[in-house]
Amino acid sequence: MRLVRFTDGDGTVRQGCVEPSADGDLVRALDPSAPAPGPGPGPGRRPGAVVGRLDEVGLLAPCDPRTIVCVGSNYPCQLEEKGRPWPEHPALFLKAPNAVAGPGEPVLRPAQVERLEYEGELAVVIGRTARDVTERDAMTHVLGLTCANDVTAHDWRADGQWTRAKSADTFCPLGPWIETDAGTGALALRTRLGDRTVQESDTGRMIFSVPAILAWVTRWITLSPGDVVLTGSPAGVGPMVAGDRVTVEIEGIGALTNPVADRPAP
Amino acid sequence: MRLVRFTDGDGTVRQGCVEPSADGDLVRALDPSAPAPGPGPGPGRRPGAVVGRLDEVGLLAPCDPRTIVCVGSNYPCQLEEKGRPWPEHPALFLKAPNAVAGPGEPVLRPAQVERLEYEGELAVVIGRTARDVTERDAMTHVLGLTCANDVTAHDWRADGQWTRAKSADTFCPLGPWIETDAGTGALALRTRLGDRTVQESDTGRMIFSVPAILAWVTRWITLSPGDVVLTGSPAGVGPMVAGDRVTVEIEGIGALTNPVADRPAP
Repeated sequence: MRLVRFTDGDGTVRQGCVEPSADGDLVRALDPSAPAPGPGPGPGRRPGAVVGRLDEVGLLAPCDPRTIVCVGSNYPCQLEEKGRPWPEHPALFLKAPNAVAGPGEPVLRPAQVERLEYEGELAVVIGRTARDVTERDAMTHVLGLTCANDVTAHDWRADGQWTRAKSADTFCPLGPWIETDAGTGALALRTRLGDRTVQESDTGRMIFSVPAILAWVTRWITLSPGDVVLTGSPAGVGPMVAGDRVTVEIEGIGALTNPVADRPAP
Repeated sequence: MRLVRFTDGDGTVRQGCVEPSADGDLVRALDPSAPAPGPGPGPGRRPGAVVGRLDEVGLLAPCDPRTIVCVGSNYPCQLEEKGRPWPEHPALFLKAPNAVAGPGEPVLRPAQVERLEYEGELAVVIGRTARDVTERDAMTHVLGLTCANDVTAHDWRADGQWTRAKSADTFCPLGPWIETDAGTGALALRTRLGDRTVQESDTGRMIFSVPAILAWVTRWITLSPGDVVLTGSPAGVGPMVAGDRVTVEIEGIGALTNPVADRPAP
C-alpha cells in the first residue's frame, strides 16, 4: 500500500492511500478512528472516501517524524570517491524535524550557504516502537519505505557538529508516499538534477543493511512510530542551485521531486 | 507560574500548575480546552481541580519537545578548563526527543559506556513559533525556563558526530517544571552529585545570551511550541556512576534530581 498525508479542506492533516485507476491514480482517505496501518497482524485502517486525483491532491511529507536518524558513509562507491575509511559500525547523525519538507516543496538555500548539496537516500519509516531490536526482528518494526534527500550545506560541515549543515528548514524532503510492500531487496536508487542522472546505485550495495542499522540504532535510541532512518547516499553527491529541480527515485517506491530556491530574507 | 506535566489516573498526559500552600505545594490541573499558557497577552489557561500534593504527583518532563537544540562552549570557565578557543558564534548540536527524561527518572548508562558525564544547564522552552527572530524580539517566543542535564557518553564523542554521545535514551532530563516568570537575569546555577557541589556558576556569565542564541538558531531552524534550547554547561563537568544522584538547581526555577543506573540488558 502507498500511504500519503495531505491537508483536508479545513486544514486538518489526514492520512490516505493511493489507489491505482485507469484514469490516473486516486487518493482515498483513511478512517482516522481506525488503527494506523502498521507492520504485523491487525486489521489496518479501512479506506474511506476518494479525496481526489493524486496529481491534484497536494501531498505533505508522508510521515511526521520526531526523530530522524541518518547513517553516513554507507555505500562503498561513496567511500572510494571521498577516500574515506570503511566504517566499523554505522556512523550516525541527526536531522531535526523542522527540516522535513513534502514532495514538491522547495528546498531553501540560506543566503550564507555557498554550496548546497543533494544526497539521494532510502528512508525507513518506523511503524512500531523499536528498542534493542535484533537484526532478525527489525523489519517487523518497519511501516514502510520512502525516498529522502539528505540536503546538506557543505560549507557548514566545518562547524564540526552538523546541526546547521543538515537540519536547516527544508533540508529533509521525504516522500512522495510510504510504500509498505517494497521489501528490502536491492532497489535501484537514482538521483536526477533536472534531466541529468547524478547518482545511480542500488540499496543492495549498502555496507550496513536496513536490519543491521535498526539493530545498531535501537541499542541506544528508542524509535517510535513515524520516526525515520536515512540509510546513506551513494557516490555522486553534488551541488544544486536555485532554479534546479532535484529528484530521488527508488525502484518499487516512487520519485520525490523538489525545486530549489533561495530562502527569503527575514 | 510553574507548569508541570503528569499522567492522569487513566494514563492521559495532562498539564498542570504548582500552587503554593502552607501544607506543602499542590498541583492543579489546567483546563485542556483552554489555550495553552504562552508568552504575550492573552488569558492563558484557567486552573482546574487540585490533582494532589506536588511530592505525590509523579511529574513527567514539563514539555514534550520535537527539537532540542543545544549550545556547546558557552561559559568562559568551561573554555578555560578545557583549553578551547572562544567561539565566534553559538556552536550547535542536537539531542533527539527519545533522550528526554522526567524529574526522578533514572539516567541509564549503556553497558558500553565507560564515562558517563553530567552537564547542568539552563533550558529555554519555546512558547510561540520562532523563525528569524531578532534578539530584541526573542523572549516573546519563550514560554519559560527549566533545568536540564545534558548527559553525555564521553567515550562516544570520538564518533565525530555526537548522536550516540548525546541522544541515547534518558540522556536529557528536564524539569521539574517550566517557570514562566524567572526572567533572564543572572541566575545561580549549581550541579550536585549527591551532596557535593560539582558545578557552580550563573547564567549571566554565558558568552551568548538566551536572546542571542535564539536569534542565531532561528536563522536556520524554525522552533515550535514545546521545543527546547539548552544553553551550555559551565566548568566542572565530570563522571557519574550507577547509584549516584545528580541535581541541577537554578535560582528562581528549581531543582531537577535524577538517579543514575545501568541500562538493563535487552
